[in-house]
Order: sequence, then C-alpha cells, then structure tokens
Amino acid sequence: MRIAIIGATGYGGEELVRLLANHPSVSIHSIHATSMHGEPLTNLYPHMHAFGDLRIEPVDVNKIASEVECVMMATPSGVSTKLAPYFLEKDVKVIDLSGDFRIKNSEEYKKWYGIDAPNKGVASQAVYGLPEWTDTDMTKVNLVANPGCYPTAILLGLAPLVQQQMIDESSIIIDAKTGVSGAGKGLSAATHFSETNDNLKIYKVNGHQHTPEIEETLQRWNESVGSVTFTTHLVPMTRGIMATMYGTVKGHTTTEKLVELFKETYHDDFFVRVRDFGQFPSTKEVYGSNFCDIGVTFDERTNRVTVVSVIDNLIKGASGQAVQNLNKMIGIDEKTGLDFMPVYP
Amino acid sequence: MRIAIIGATGYGGEELVRLLANHPSVSIHSIHATSMHGEPLTNLYPHMHAFGDLRIEPVDVNKIASEVECVMMATPSGVSTKLAPYFLEKDVKVIDLSGDFRIKNSEEYKKWYGIDAPNKGVASQAVYGLPEWTDTDMTKVNLVANPGCYPTAILLGLAPLVQQQMIDESSIIIDAKTGVSGAGKGLSAATHFSETNDNLKIYKVNGHQHTPEIEETLQRWNESVGSVTFTTHLVPMTRGIMATMYGTVKGHTTTEKLVELFKETYHDDFFVRVRDFGQFPSTKEVYGSNFCDIGVTFDERTNRVTVVSVIDNLIKGASGQAVQNLNKMIGIDEKTGLDFMPVYP
Amino acid sequence: MRIAIIGATGYGGEELVRLLANHPSVSIHSIHATSMHGEPLTNLYPHMHAFGDLRIEPVDVNKIASEVECVMMATPSGVSTKLAPYFLEKDVKVIDLSGDFRIKNSEEYKKWYGIDAPNKGVASQAVYGLPEWTDTDMTKVNLVANPGCYPTAILLGLAPLVQQQMIDESSIIIDAKTGVSGAGKGLSAATHFSETNDNLKIYKVNGHQHTPEIEETLQRWNESVGSVTFTTHLVPMTRGIMATMYGTVKGHTTTEKLVELFKETYHDDFFVRVRDFGQFPSTKEVYGSNFCDIGVTFDERTNRVTVVSVIDNLIKGASGQAVQNLNKMIGIDEKTGLDFMPVYP
Amino acid sequence: MRIAIIGATGYGGEELVRLLANHPSVSIHSIHATSMHGEPLTNLYPHMHAFGDLRIEPVDVNKIASEVECVMMATPSGVSTKLAPYFLEKDVKVIDLSGDFRIKNSEEYKKWYGIDAPNKGVASQAVYGLPEWTDTDMTKVNLVANPGCYPTAILLGLAPLVQQQMIDESSIIIDAKTGVSGAGKGLSAATHFSETNDNLKIYKVNGHQHTPEIEETLQRWNESVGSVTFTTHLVPMTRGIMATMYGTVKGHTTTEKLVELFKETYHDDFFVRVRDFGQFPSTKEVYGSNFCDIGVTFDERTNRVTVVSVIDNLIKGASGQAVQNLNKMIGIDEKTGLDFMPVYP
Repeated sequence: MRIAIIGATGYGGEELVRLLANHPSVSIHSIHATSMHGEPLTNLYPHMHAFGDLRIEPVDVNKIASEVECVMMATPSGVSTKLAPYFLEKDVKVIDLSGDFRIKNSEEYKKWYGIDAPNKGVASQAVYGLPEWTDTDMTKVNLVANPGCYPTAILLGLAPLVQQQMIDESSIIIDAKTGVSGAGKGLSAATHFSETNDNLKIYKVNGHQHTPEIEETLQRWNESVGSVTFTTHLVPMTRGIMATMYGTVKGHTTTEKLVELFKETYHDDFFVRVRDFGQFPSTKEVYGSNFCDIGVTFDERTNRVTVVSVIDNLIKGASGQAVQNLNKMIGIDEKTGLDFMPVYP
Repeated sequence: MRIAIIGATGYGGEELVRLLANHPSVSIHSIHATSMHGEPLTNLYPHMHAFGDLRIEPVDVNKIASEVECVMMATPSGVSTKLAPYFLEKDVKVIDLSGDFRIKNSEEYKKWYGIDAPNKGVASQAVYGLPEWTDTDMTKVNLVANPGCYPTAILLGLAPLVQQQMIDESSIIIDAKTGVSGAGKGLSAATHFSETNDNLKIYKVNGHQHTPEIEETLQRWNESVGSVTFTTHLVPMTRGIMATMYGTVKGHTTTEKLVELFKETYHDDFFVRVRDFGQFPSTKEVYGSNFCDIGVTFDERTNRVTVVSVIDNLIKGASGQAVQNLNKMIGIDEKTGLDFMPVYP
Repeated sequence: MRIAIIGATGYGGEELVRLLANHPSVSIHSIHATSMHGEPLTNLYPHMHAFGDLRIEPVDVNKIASEVECVMMATPSGVSTKLAPYFLEKDVKVIDLSGDFRIKNSEEYKKWYGIDAPNKGVASQAVYGLPEWTDTDMTKVNLVANPGCYPTAILLGLAPLVQQQMIDESSIIIDAKTGVSGAGKGLSAATHFSETNDNLKIYKVNGHQHTPEIEETLQRWNESVGSVTFTTHLVPMTRGIMATMYGTVKGHTTTEKLVELFKETYHDDFFVRVRDFGQFPSTKEVYGSNFCDIGVTFDERTNRVTVVSVIDNLIKGASGQAVQNLNKMIGIDEKTGLDFMPVYP
Repeated sequence: MRIAIIGATGYGGEELVRLLANHPSVSIHSIHATSMHGEPLTNLYPHMHAFGDLRIEPVDVNKIASEVECVMMATPSGVSTKLAPYFLEKDVKVIDLSGDFRIKNSEEYKKWYGIDAPNKGVASQAVYGLPEWTDTDMTKVNLVANPGCYPTAILLGLAPLVQQQMIDESSIIIDAKTGVSGAGKGLSAATHFSETNDNLKIYKVNGHQHTPEIEETLQRWNESVGSVTFTTHLVPMTRGIMATMYGTVKGHTTTEKLVELFKETYHDDFFVRVRDFGQFPSTKEVYGSNFCDIGVTFDERTNRVTVVSVIDNLIKGASGQAVQNLNKMIGIDEKTGLDFMPVYP
C-alpha cells in the first residue's frame, strides 16, 4: 500500500516517516508540506540520514489522489476539513491526526476550536480511531479521526470505570501533564528552552480543546457523564503524557478489584499494560513506544479511585496510533511495525 | 542572636546557611551534622567558598545549648523529638524544619510517619509556623514547627476558600508536583539522574506523610473538612512545587470574585502574590525566593474552583520560611534577609 | 545615582533590573525597549511582582540623557554604536553590555560582526571592563565596554598563564560550553525546548564573534599570542558557561605551582575563586552569582596545562559584571549589591 | 544462536535485552546478575513488560557454558578477566563489554584500571571489536573486546586523519562530553539529579581509564602517535556522547578535502554518517540508534582541524556495537536488528 504523508515537517509527520520507514507492509510514496519544496527531509531532520531520500513536495491534491491508496494528515486544525472530502471522493483512505473529525457535535467543535466544523456528511463517515475501543470493521472504514494525545491517555484510563458505571459520573477530575513536544515544532515563548527548562507551567485551565473530545467519548460509553474538569500542565521533558484522574466510587470497591477489572478489560490489548497492585507507571517507561501504561488504586479514606495513565504523546498519542489504525484498516496484526520496546533510560 | 544549625549538610541546612550568611540581625554560630566532623562545609558545597570557614561539628547538645540562643533543626524525622526538649529546657529556642512537631494528633503522626510521636507536653508548646496564618505573638514562642513544603503551598492556596467555607469540604482534591530537591541530598534510585531526567513519576499515591498536616490545619480553619485526596508527582526539575487544587463551590461564584477574595486576603503578606484574572504562576517564577504565587479560577461548566499555588520547596517550603519565622520570633520585619527577587530564567 | 536601562526586556536587561533593585547606592530611574511601551515589566516577567511598578518606555535619547547620570545598554549589536555618542556628549556615562565597543580593531569588528564598527573617536574612549584586569581609574571613565560572556570566563582563566608567558602562545585551544540563556530571549529553532533538551549541540565552529575580543585582550597582555582555536557548544541547561582551555607549557611546571600562581594572582579578587589541587568547578557552583571559579592542572604525559573556568553567563558574564563596573565607576566597593552566594542545588 | 547475558541489570545489559528481543537470528537464553535472583527483569525495568518473562539467574558458569553458544558480558572491570577464560575453554564465544580485554599492554591496564590485567594467553585471543576497523574474519573470533563508549566516538572520528598521517601526531586534544547514563545505574553523588540537572561538570581530567585504549588503537594505526590529551565532561542529559577533537594539520588542507576524505573512508559503513560541508551533528540526532555521526572542518587561521563525533553511548558506545559484533561473528549483515532510526526529538 502506498501512503502519502501531508504535514511531514512537523513532529507528527516526522514520526510517521520514522515508523513507516521500517513497516513491512506499506511504503511511503511521498511527503508533503507547505514549504521547503524540493528539499530532502534530512535538511530538517538530519537524524534521518541513511534512510532514503524523501523530498518534500507541495500539497497537490489531484496528484496525491492519483498516486496513493491512503493519505495520512498531520496538519493543523482546519486543513483536513478542506482536503479530506476530496480524497474520499477519489476513494483514497484518510487517516487524520488533526482534531477536525474527532468531534461529532459541530457546535462544540466551533466553540473549542474557534473555526467552522467540517461538512456533516463527510464528518459522519469518520470513525474515532481509539483502536482498543473501536467496534467497527476497520477494513471498511475510509476516514479515521485519530484521537488526540491527551484523550488517548485519558480515555484508556477511564474506560473501565465509566463503562462499568463504577464512578459518580459528575465527579471526574483529570489533572494532565505533557512533555513539550506536544506543543509541536513551531516556535513560541512557551516552548523557549530558557523559560521551560527547570520550570513547571499550567496552561489552558478549563479551556483545552481536547475537552469535548473526551466528554463526547465518555458519553458514548455512559450517557450520564457530564462535564469533566480537565487541566493541563507543561513539564520540562520532551516526550510523555501522564494523566492523573480522580473519581468518586459509587458504593465501595478495593484496589485489588480495580486492578483485576483493568487487567481483564485490556487482557487482549498488546498496547495497554496494566500495572500490578501498588505500582504506577512513569512516562519514561513508555518513551519512544506505542504503549499506554496504567496504574489504578482506591482510597478508603476518601472513597475515590485514582487512575494514572501514561503514553508517549508523539507515538500512542499520535503517529503510532495512526499506524495502529492503518494496520487495522489493512486487516493485518495491529502490532505490525510497532512491536518495539520503549527506550529506557 | 547566635544560631546553631543542626543537619547542616542536607539541602535544608545548606539553604539555612546561605540565607543566614547575609542576614543582618543574626549570625551562624555553628553548624552540626552526624558526619564530616571538622571539615569545612565548602568540601561538600564548593559554591560557598568566600563566605567564611564554617566547619561541621558534632551534635553536642550541651555545648550547643550553652552557646546559642536559637537552634534550627533540618534533621530527619525523629531527631527533633529527642533533642528539642533538651534545648527548650535550657531556654534555647527551637525552629524545627522536620515533621516532628507539626501534627497535634499523636496517633496520626505514628500512622503516617511510622515512628512514635514526641512527648505531648513538649509538642503542646509547638506553634505551627505558617507565618501568614499564625495568630500567636511569635516573640513569645519557643518551639516552632516549620511547615512542610507541600503543606505550605497547599494551605496558602486553600486558606481563603476553606476559611470562608466556600467549597464543599469533602470535595478537596490536591494534585501536587515537586522538583527533585524535595527528596533531599540522600541518594536513591528515585533521584538517580538517568531515571529521573526527561521522566515524570507519581509516588506515594494517597500515602504521603504530609497528608495529616494538611488535614489538621484545614480542620483548625474549618471543622467540616474531612479527608482530602492528595497525590504527589516528581517532576524533572531541581526546585519548585506546584499544587493544583480542586473543590466544588457551594452555591455560585465567579473568577473575578475569587481573585478579589485572594487579593484581599493576602493584601498585607509580602510573600504571597496573587495573580490577576486569567493568570497562573509557574514554578520558575518563584525559583530561589521566599514567594508563594497563586492563581485561581472558577469553571461554570463544572462548578469547580481551581487553585494553583507555587513555591520554591527549599525556601518558602523550608529554609526561607524558617527564617521568616525566626524574624517574627525576634520581632523584626518578616522580610529581613528574604526580600530578594526570584532568579529567572 | 539614577540609572536608565535600555534593552530591559531581554535577559541581560532583566538581570540588571533584578540586581539593581536591591542595590543600596543606585536606583533604576527608567527602563526602555523598542516595544511594549507603557506596559509594566511584570507582564513579561511575573517573577518581578512586588518589586515596584517599572513600566517600559520608548528609547527617547533626549529625555533619558536629561534625567539620568548613567545608561546601561543591554541591546543588540549596532545599537550602542549609534546611541552611546549622544549620551557621552551629554555627560551621561554609558555601560555597554553589547559587543560594540569591545574590539579596538575596526576591521576585525566588521569581519566578525558583519556591521560597521563605531566611530573611532568614541571607541577610543571605551575601557574594556574586565574588572579584575582594568588598570584605569574607573571613576574617570565614561564609556565601559562590558566583556562578553565567553571572554569573561576565558580571559580570567588564561590571564595568569598568558601574562606570565608560561604557555606556547600558538598552542591555545578553547573548548567552551554555554547554557541556553546565552542565546537570549528571542525565539529560534536552536533554542526550541524539544530540540535542545537532552541534546548537546556544537555551533559556530571557528566562527564565534567573541574570537577577536579574546585575541585582542590576550595580545594586550602578551603580544606573541596569535590566533586561538575557539569552539562553542550549547548544553541543555539554562545558565552557566564552562571554558575548558588547553595550552602547551614552555619548559616545565607542576600542578602545585600552577594552583599557587592562580591563587596568588586572584588573591584580592573576591569574585574569582581558585580551586585547590585536583579540584575543578562545575557551572552550578556559580549559578545565580557573580563568581568565576577556576581549576587548573598540569599533565606530565603531554606537557599541557588544562584550565577550567566557569561563570553564570547572565551575571559575571553580563549584568553582574556590569554592576561590578558600575560600582568601580562610582568608587564604591566592587562587591556592593553583588555579594550573595550562588543558588545551589 | 542462544545467548546468555551476564550483568543484565545494568544499563548495558538492559539495552542488550532490548536490542536482542527483536533480533531475528538470535535468542536470549538467559540473563544473569549477582542479585535479584528469581525476579523478573520487569521488576527493575517495567518498560519491558509484554516482552516475555526473563528472570534473573545467578552467574553459574558451568550451567551457562553448557546451554549457550555465546555469552555477552556487561559487567564491571575485572569480572570478565575471571570468567571469560572458562567460557572460551568450553567453546562458548564471549563478547565482553567491559574494559578487561581492550588493552594489550598489561602494565597500562593496571596503571589506569588499578587492578591486574587478564592472563596474557587469553588476552591475546581478544579482538578489539570496532567493527568499521576490524580486518579480522570475525566469524573465527571467539573473544571480542567491545570498545568503550568514548573510544568508539573518538576513534571513528580520528581514524581518517591519523591513518592518513594528516595531523601532527603530538597535537591531538580530545574534549569529550557524555550524558549521565554513561555512569551506569549505580547510585553516586555525581549522578544525583539535584546536583546534575542544569549543571555541567568536568571529571577525571587527564585521568580517564579510556585513555590507553584510545592511544593503543591510534598507535596501531600510526606508530608516531604519542600521548593524547583527553578530558571528559558530564552533561545534564541521559544519553549521548560528543567528542570534539583538535589536531594541527601537517602541510595544508581544506574543509572540502576533509569532508571528501571522511565520506570516502566511511562510504560502505552504514553506521557512520559524515555530515556535509559546514554541518555538525548533535547528540540527539543519534539518540537511541547505532549511528556515529561526524562533522569535520579546517581553520585557516590556526591550521587546525576540528572533528566532531557523536554516538548514543549505550548503543553504538556499548550494546548496539556488541550486537553489530555479534552479527559479524555469526556472519550475517551487520545491520541485522540495528537498522532503526534515531528517536527525535
């Protein structure tokens, strides 16, 4: 299968190139961006030397559609809204790493993203691609909305509790932390080394655009879920997301039971690893990999459950998950090209 | 006033030496530790060269008591329990940076610290020295329990809400993050650079020994407060604590009102700086200083308030606050020797 | 003495504000920059809250000259060339933190900086303000060229050897490393956190603009010195410069003799601290201070001497040294306002 | 081929496990260490979950020798000296990641390592396994001395110049910098996060035990090489080595010629990537990979060449290179199991 990557110069695109370079079943046909046309990608990313001579091409939709079977889009908000319909019309599959097709409620999209939602007809074809929880036959899907980095960690961590209705649906508080690569390759004062190193920042308090994506998905699983509290922090590290999540247990439970529930839930999911009683993951333990590691505990004193979920934001939170979705769309083992260990230390 | 510092080789002790070196009203008479006797402190801390020739002495209680008016103890749990009574008996004032005298309920102390609580008669003399909220005449106090690093950030952030009974007393969730210096100078796998750098860890979930200190103080302010959820994370940075705190508002409020409340509450407290509407502090903005910076906001969607409070864990969270208490005990301006700006970037 | 700071929004200017805020003998009259006019500096630097209400003013040369006795310029190359002559004409002293007046040879200036050198008449008034090695009566000086960050560490480390003609003048190799704040507050790909964290880069190999400043000064001390090899690296830390310097010894020496020479040379210089035999400084040991710490050793096997010199690039390498020069111009103790310890850890 | 890894709990051993886990031609038969017997390796390294259930076994030489065809030793100095002879006698191949068999001159070994050198008869069988420069038929070799991390970066960088006799053999100065994982998993004050983060240290000046390994190899290539100056620095990052190397050119050259020489020299070596004119590598560009990236330039002013060489110290500097040697011993493509891209950012 030939793939085109649009938005190849950002971190999401760059990681797609890296992951697909060693993928046995697909090949990168071309890479595209809005600048640097004709230049080898190694000019921007010298670490890619010795892995071919991909050169950046313009985003010529016609040409792309005529040459590949699948387009992966690692583009800013609003781009896929415009381009995806065209590819779909030409029977080219689209995996969209942006937020454009993740949210079904178009008013919510506009409220949180500040731009118009995509066409409803097109949007309705989109499958929200959290692979552990999609029940669609992915080989028949043409448009995948690849989940956001925060939602991936959060939803995998909350799914067992929310689906089993074990926690008070109005009690959910999510305190999330990300490494700085989540902010992308674009320059900003917030990601200037001297002001970020040795510093912990909080940002977008109650205002992160991933909020509706989290809420909509939780509500699909359990319609009683209302608004969640969602806070995001910027940690002086390059990769990694940790979501620490709190909910009040209905009735009573024990940590043993919770760990058992989580282990059973994800028993067949290679990429979700549930820690034993009393153990919690750190972000480095999934660094450079497609894993989501989860720890869970119950506190008798407060009757609250705490779930800790970690991912590599650029892999399970973006490009790795996109490849996992791609594998499912092709109908091959979801682990193909992704079954490598985290890099530690 | 002559001061002896016990536990001078740890970070708390080292910072006491640094802060008192430039203090105009007191002098360091001697420094003490359980090892390195006779060696200059600069052997351990070369950054102190050119600031005198303090040498490490054994902890000879008799000798110390006969030579100084005040002892500052930056020692592990259990040491002050044993030594403080002796100094008090000799009319030597004690400022204790350890947790020994912070908790009034001796069963709680034993439960969380795992060792026996100090003698009740002695403990009852101890004043919990959170300077912004002590109503005692500190010039008459002989034993100060200097607050823990986490409780300092947390209590200053929650005080207005809890004292004014603005939030549901059972709804308090504290998601706290610390730099690694909070773990001290002792070596451990948890603080080994290669495993801590570029990594975010969670630790002591629902089990941190600062929990009873936080709860007891909140309950002194508002007896309806019950158990709080308190989680701690280790951030790859040297200094700094951020506490992100959540509570459900009783009735209704606005961010404007909350900011106003906090600004009024701390109007006369030099070391507490409340941010304007929509602004939140980062840890680096208090790095190397005695400030506690606070941001607060209200979320209409969830009816929750979020408070963000940051300190330098070694200064406002330990040695700086001890000097602030010392100043109040002497009866001089609490800012003396502490009115310097944070070091940024 | 009233001071105006031009270029107050960059790190050099910000540190001047911080250092002068607590200086007993001078006061900041006004701060100036090319943008953000009317805004409080705390909008850009919230860590400065509680230290007055300095607002950013335009660079109105007439107004400034009529209101202050001294201007400190923390501006990009070329600005002081234009503004300094005007201030000098109005009998306002100038301390220039930029490179404009450091290099006497105007062709060298143009070659390395790529812009025209300042007027020779004005430039000839400039004194190169490395306080440990100025033999001028600074109270009579009107224009000080404050040394660059690298040259400060390097020249203090090489001075004893070069002045005493102990090393082969053509053998000098300087391998220098800096923290990222040396690149300033301006955004660039080179200082983007995700690409700088956990990464070590080399830059401007054989091409750093501080080269002629180093060579000219060494040649003033010893006219046999020719071209030096000077390499610069970017280390993933915020502050600090380390220069590791190599030279071949003429004849023979011992480490003991070298340490003794350095200790004697800097015996009366508070801000230069020479380490004992076998000891070398690390950058954190001068963090946040005006110290330059130096270690030196001799290798029998290669007949080479190695000198290691560290400073905080923003303080001894810029603003602190400027205040040290200011103190000497006023005729007060050079330590005034600068005699604080490094912040460690 | 069945492999046993001795010293599996250190970083070198852990990386061997990671790399071999996905190797198509060999399998890890057993892992061994001096403690934690019976425990799964995931207790120490949770990032390895989902990749089998390797448990740590004692170092029972007889049992190991009877069960595997190859032993890889990632042990402290002195262990291989004792164990390797036994394995060799039993026709088990040994790849030794320690320094024991790297140095032919046993007096030099003792001088720099402080312990006795291995038996000469055994040592003489050892091949120094820098794969780009071994001319032996590796399929016939039974004992490989895997090069040290610093020597790997340094020797690959200096080889073209020294072999071609282009630089004055007495002029070589090596200024090397390493990430902290080079110091291993053992705890020490030097690797305590709070004292290492945001700090640059120099250590073992003129005294690093890799010195004789570098000199011996250079002398094998060019007998005129004498003592080199070799300095090592500890950079606040986890992985990566950069060696900045200086030499005085005999006669004259140009950067163009040097780049051409290096490109030709390594034309057929997949793992050595030479940068174009004016380009230099940073350590992150080889992070997590087996590459050695090199930049080279000539300075007309000083007649010196500067070579910059970077590797991931745990991979090309240890375990990756060991696997590369293993591949050559088996007689398969040296890239097998190693042809993955660096992880960036």
